[in-house]
Formats: sequence, C-alpha cells, structure tokens
Amino acid sequence: MALGYDLERMLNPRTVAVIGDAKVRNYRWIRSLSTFTGKVYSVQIDPKEIPGIEELGVPNYTSLLEVPDEIDYALVAVPRVAAAVVLRDCIAKGVGGVGMFTSGFAETDTEEGRAQQQRITEMAREAKLPLIGPNCMGLYHPGLGVRFMENQPAGFEGDVTFLSQSGGHAVDFSMAAHASGVPVRMAISFGNGVILENADYLEYFALDEATRYIAMYVEGLRDGPRFFAALREAARRKPVVLWKGGLTDAGGRATSSHTASLAGAAEVWDAVFRQTGAIPVTSVLEMVDVLKGLRLWPRFSGNGVGLTGGSGGQSVAMADVFSRAGMRVPALSEASRERLASWFSLVGASFNNPVDMGSNRSEMDTILDVLAEDPSIDSLVMQVRPGSGDAADQERLDGQLAALKRLRERSGKPVSALTSSSMPLEDGPAVADLDGRLREIGVAAYPTYERAAIAMRKVLNYYEFRDSLEG
Amino acid sequence: MALGYDLERMLNPRTVAVIGDAKVRNYRWIRSLSTFTGKVYSVQIDPKEIPGIEELGVPNYTSLLEVPDEIDYALVAVPRVAAAVVLRDCIAKGVGGVGMFTSGFAETDTEEGRAQQQRITEMAREAKLPLIGPNCMGLYHPGLGVRFMENQPAGFEGDVTFLSQSGGHAVDFSMAAHASGVPVRMAISFGNGVILENADYLEYFALDEATRYIAMYVEGLRDGPRFFAALREAARRKPVVLWKGGLTDAGGRATSSHTASLAGAAEVWDAVFRQTGAIPVTSVLEMVDVLKGLRLWPRFSGNGVGLTGGSGGQSVAMADVFSRAGMRVPALSEASRERLASWFSLVGASFNNPVDMGSNRSEMDTILDVLAEDPSIDSLVMQVRPGSGDAADQERLDGQLAALKRLRERSGKPVSALTSSSMPLEDGPAVADLDGRLREIGVAAYPTYERAAIAMRKVLNYYEFRDSLEG
Repeated sequence: MALGYDLERMLNPRTVAVIGDAKVRNYRWIRSLSTFTGKVYSVQIDPKEIPGIEELGVPNYTSLLEVPDEIDYALVAVPRVAAAVVLRDCIAKGVGGVGMFTSGFAETDTEEGRAQQQRITEMAREAKLPLIGPNCMGLYHPGLGVRFMENQPAGFEGDVTFLSQSGGHAVDFSMAAHASGVPVRMAISFGNGVILENADYLEYFALDEATRYIAMYVEGLRDGPRFFAALREAARRKPVVLWKGGLTDAGGRATSSHTASLAGAAEVWDAVFRQTGAIPVTSVLEMVDVLKGLRLWPRFSGNGVGLTGGSGGQSVAMADVFSRAGMRVPALSEASRERLASWFSLVGASFNNPVDMGSNRSEMDTILDVLAEDPSIDSLVMQVRPGSGDAADQERLDGQLAALKRLRERSGKPVSALTSSSMPLEDGPAVADLDGRLREIGVAAYPTYERAAIAMRKVLNYYEFRDSLEG
Repeated sequence: MALGYDLERMLNPRTVAVIGDAKVRNYRWIRSLSTFTGKVYSVQIDPKEIPGIEELGVPNYTSLLEVPDEIDYALVAVPRVAAAVVLRDCIAKGVGGVGMFTSGFAETDTEEGRAQQQRITEMAREAKLPLIGPNCMGLYHPGLGVRFMENQPAGFEGDVTFLSQSGGHAVDFSMAAHASGVPVRMAISFGNGVILENADYLEYFALDEATRYIAMYVEGLRDGPRFFAALREAARRKPVVLWKGGLTDAGGRATSSHTASLAGAAEVWDAVFRQTGAIPVTSVLEMVDVLKGLRLWPRFSGNGVGLTGGSGGQSVAMADVFSRAGMRVPALSEASRERLASWFSLVGASFNNPVDMGSNRSEMDTILDVLAEDPSIDSLVMQVRPGSGDAADQERLDGQLAALKRLRERSGKPVSALTSSSMPLEDGPAVADLDGRLREIGVAAYPTYERAAIAMRKVLNYYEFRDSLEG
C-alpha cells in the first residue's frame, strides 16, 4: 500500500475479537459472526453482559491482552469514551486490523468528537494499524463468513467488492446484490475513514485478483488528486461502478453530519467520471443493475437495440424509454422485414422494431434470429412477464426462456429481459423467480424498462471508454 | 356531446351482447362478463363454438337481431371480414353502442385494412352509433362488473377514469391502480378511435360527476385544436394525468403500427402540458403514483420537504433524490434545531434535515412535530421499511405508523412514506401490505425515493398551476 498499511491479514482473518458487544443490541456482532470459519473471541468487562455472551458459545475475556490467540481482526463496539483505551490494547496486542463501529466523532460536529477522532487517528497512524472506521460496520467477507448483520448471506466466493462510506448502503448492497445473483467478494463500510479511506481501498482492490468488479459509495475525499489517480488506475484494470452521494446542496449538507465529509461539486465529479471511465450510478439498485449487465452480457459495442415481446402500447413505451436513455431503436433493414413478412400474420401485430409478437409465439426463434442478424441491432431485449402462474402461462414462459437461451448461445450479442408487471409488489416473488431462471441462461433481467435501458446505456458507455483507450 | 353521440347508455349497460367469442381465446369476453350485474347474451353462428358458450350459462343466438332484449353494449370480436356485416346488425338492432375488439384495420398499413376501416367508420357515423375502437378492449366498468379481462377486479365504485389508445396499458392500469388503492370508475380502451377518440371521451368525462380524476394514454390526435380545448376545459374541472406515448422518433414510429396514429412533436406536447395544467407522466406506474398523491394528500403549496427515518447514507440519498426532482430539502430553522437539540442524543444521529432518527424512535412524535411546524417545511416524508417481520420489527413498524397517523391528523400537511427495500422483489408482498396500512391512515407510500419525489413534484406543479389560475 502506498501509505504502508497492510490490509491483507485483517481482510482475511482466521481469528476475530469482538470488543464491547452488548445485550442492548442483542449481541449483534457476535451473532453476525456465527458463520465465521475461524475462531471468535469476545472482550467485555461488564459482568452483566458476560453471561449473555457465553450463552452464545463464545469465550469472553475482560481484556484483549488476555485472549490466548493472535487476533487478525478486532471489531470495536465500545462507547466512545473507551475507544482510545481499547485501541491502545489493540496496538499492544498486535492485532491485524480494527473495524471501529463506535461513533460520536467528527460526524457530530462537536469539539469533543473532533478531539477524540484526532486522538485515535494519531494512535493508529503511529502504530501503522489498519483501522476501518470509526462510525462504520467494518468488514463483510462472505467467503469467510465474516458479516456485520445477522441476515447477510455467507458461504460463497464472490467477485464484486463494495467500498462504502455508508454502513446502511453496505448492508443494502450486500442484500440487493445477493438477491440479484451478483456475488459479493467483500464489502467494507468505513464511515469516517480516518486512516484508510477511499483511495486506500481502491488501490488495494484494484490489485486484488479475486475482485473482478469494484463498486463504491463515496461521500467525500481526503485527497482529491490521489483518489483521481487511484480511480483511473483501478478503472483501467476492472470496471468501477461509483455512486457519489451528496452532489446536491441538501445532500452535501447531509454528508457532513453523516461522515464529516465535504461532498464536492457536481461539475468536478462529472469530469472525474468522464476522464476515468468509472460508471456513475445514483442508488444501490442501479449499482446492482449495472453489475448484473457487466457480468451477464458479452462485451459489446453499438447502441442499436432490438425490442420485442410487448403489446402495441408496450412496444411504444419500450421504444420511448430506450430512446430517452440514449439507445437507438432502429427500423429493421429491408431484408429483415422481408424475412419477417414471409410468414408473419399481418393482423394485429407489427414487424417493425419493436416487433410485436402478437400471436406469433410459435415463430419466436425465427423472429429473434431475424432481429439478432439485422446489421443495425447490437443487443436484444425481450419482454418476459411473470404472468399468472397457471399452466398455459407456464408453457408460454418456458417457451420464451427456451427461445432466449438459444438466442443467447447463437447470437453472441447481449440478451436482456424485461420482467415488468403491472402489480410489481404483489408479483415480486414471481419476478424474482423468473429473474433467477433468466440469469441461469445468461440473460440479464430488469423489472422496469427504465432500469434496463439505463443499465445498458451505462455499461455501453464503459465499453466505449475502453474502446477509446485501446483504439 | 359535441359530435352528437350519446355515450351514456353504452357506458352504463344493463345488457351486453358478445358477438363472436371463440374457444381459441377461451371465451375471454363471456368469461370476463361473469361479474356483470346485467344480462349477457352471446351471438355466434359457428355451431362448433356454441356448446362451449352455452356451457358457461350464457344464451346464444345465431343473429343479433334474434336476441329477445334491447342491447346497451355490443362487444364485437368477429374476424375482420365479418366486422361490417355485424356492425350493420348492431345498427339495425339499435344497440346503445359497440366495442370493437376486431383488429386488422388501418394499423396494418395495408390497403385492405384502410378500406375496411373506412367502411365501418362511415356506417357508424351515418347511424350516429357510438363505436369504441376498433382494435381495442372496449369498456371496463367495475361498478357494473363489465370487464375485458377475467382477472380484473370488479364490484366497487371508483372515481378515476382511464382513457387509453392502448388495450395493454388499459389492462395494466386497471391492475396497477387497484393494487395501489386507486379505485377505477371506468377504463376505456379505444384503439384506432375511428368514431370516438381522445377529445370525445375527454369532453364526456370532464362532465361526469363520478369521475373526480381523469387519466389518459394518448398516441395520436385526429383534431389537435379540439383536443387542446377539451383538455384545457377538463383540466380546469379536475386533475388530468396524461401519458403521451411515442414522443421519441422510435416510439412515434411504433404508434403508427399500433393505432395508426401520428405521434406529434415533443415540443408541441411540452406546450400543451404547460398551457393546460395536465400532469405529464411516462408510464402506468407513474400515473398511479401521481393519482395516489392527488387522492391522499391535502392540496398544498411550497416545495420544502422534511425528510426522516433513514440511516446516514440513506439520508444523503433522500436529500439528493428529492433535490434532483425539484423539491427543496431546507435546513431547519434555528428554533427547530434548538427544540430538537434539547433532548436529541448527540451520538450517531443528525438533527438537520433529513433528520436521522438514530436511536430516538421513542421521540418520534416530537421529531415529526418539530419538522411539521418548521416554517420552511411544506410536506413530510418518512422512510418506513417493511423489515424482517419479527416481533421487534412489528413493534417498530406499529410505532412508525402510529406516529404517522397522528402527524397526518395534526399537521394538515401532505404525509408520505418511503417503503423502499434492498430486496424489492422478495419483499414485494410485505411492501404491498405496508402500503395498504399506510393508505388507510392517509399516507401515500412509494417503494423508491425517486417515485415519491417525482410524484410529489408533479402534483405540486398541478397545484401551482391551479393557484396561478385562481390567483
């Protein structure tokens, strides 16, 4: 690392100490580590808290220095007044690193908060102790079962690492990504980031081979030029999807009370995105949408989209939405139209683009092939609605999925599905199921036209940036 | 009606004849009318189709003229070649009106299609027969149980009427509105609209007392100036939420193969919206979002929003999203900040706007009152996540709902809830349940920050337009 901190040991722990877990939060840290593949120790001096901890099967010590093992990662959840004392013990113990959940520092905009933050910062810096936080959730490493919430999934190896100044977004991302089949390698919530901040993590994970994609939520930077250099270098190596929070006046004001960050001007960030090729997003779900496209689509170029599967009105809406997002919905070539016309039922269906399949579902493969082979079509999108679940509907769905699978295999072009429903809440579980089936055959599914179109345009921007670097 | 067509009888039928229903579509029209409060007759000459119809308990006749009753509404689903002959019978029978599902007319862009359309148009015009369609779903009138899909809800009186050139959107709207607690009075899908089109329906429902809100999906107009006048007059009487399809080049091309419409330029439509006060939307769900706000919020003015209920990162996101949508997230007054500071825990929570409740949930009423009483706050928004469903979570939810109910009753300001989830598909049913509970206490709930902010801005634009008319 540029700054001489060794993150390796802390991020891949064999032992974890939880310092200061408490009943008031239902021992969330110890419970979250129930999936940890290594050894968990507790440090708690309050005799009222100890029985509850021991009931969870975790040995407790009244001082970190008494723990009869080396500690790779120490999760500190003590009150602010005890933070410095505990940090002193962590340094004396030679722990691999610290995640500090404790809050009440500079983000409170108080003299005492700033002074305490200054104190722990100086201690960690002097000892070269990798400190995540304070005011954060620390490390989520599902492959090793290290979690910061009891309901986070674990027990799989992922390839997307999320770096976040917000604990809430880190939690949301871990859940949203898993639900969408985007496997997380690690997520790090680092809050105020007094020792390690955006640039440090970015530099580390740019070189981490198991991380194929980086996602970030940034509120503010300590060193703009260093971050810019790190981002440019990381984005040259792998896609970086970046959500910059606080770009509006009101949002910027909120970042200062959240992580004591200065948010920075929107124009500056526009230039950062343009010059580094990082992919800008504005929510956790959009981040996951883009990652899904990056993972499931082959690298592609060209913004011509072939759309199909909707009714007449839905075809109009699809064309409008994809056009507004910066994609083209080109008219088909004369040759394509002739191929379609030769057996297309003329009544009640259109064979322009969007192609309204109407009652021609039996010819789905041919329709899709004509679209895929049209020279102006660079990617393919089909509406696949979850439907009512009855037998006829299941048959329709199976047919659509089979056609998409063949299309995906034959065309070499990105294939996406629109799983929109008029009752998205009620149909949510059916859409989730369909989303999973589509993912298995390499098709990226999106529950609204807008989300599909925006994800596609953003991924295409990224590939165009790469083309410009390589061209 | 300006054009001398009487819609009253057809839209409020006591008798319906279904002409040409068939097994190939599983007798969808007859099945859809199973909820009809009046009398259903079938007309079908094909002896192979008749037993299936009679099995559904509906009497069949081989000619409309043989039906021993007056017919208020005739649904025509015969093949195109028979459309004119059937229409002649409808005229001879003196039916109240016709909904023509049959397609294959001008929308196919063929000489034969255009000729047939011309023929039925002239017949209906000469007879002054109110004709809905062709190439459409016709009438949905849930209060009388007239449906065009078997899964549409019925048996309630609504106050929102939807007028649509797309049958697919009319189906989607009827489902989406019902799921969101927006009760439909009628929906009319009128496809090619050869006799009655946008302006006719608009004029009719502007005067329909039971219709308090009008929603429309428009592809193209036959008479721009007449539509503009009708829209201005209707929007003076009640809110009109309007989705103009085909405003992009590709979308416009799609409208011509859908309903043979010329879509019109985006700039023209911008002016139409500005000058009439109609509320522009771009999807069925956005339409329902706006209607929900119109129904649940008191009329309000001012774009200052008070936000609360999120974590630090979520607060930043809320502030960004509402700001980008054109709302203000003002800093609280000094007096408000002092009131909050007097008992606000300083550690880990913010009492700016957005107010991060942190662990101060027990003080929720006071926090909300301070927000509501701040002079710069015009409407209130709280994040209320569905949660895990366990007991502690239910208690949290009950507390939030109780606080919102009191706020709604005391403040006189619009109150909204953000029911976003990091797993929106999986949590869909829980969010739907929460949405219903919130609606019952007069709180408009939205499943994403963006949808809430956009709906609020659009409704506020409408009230500002009304203020400008009345001021």
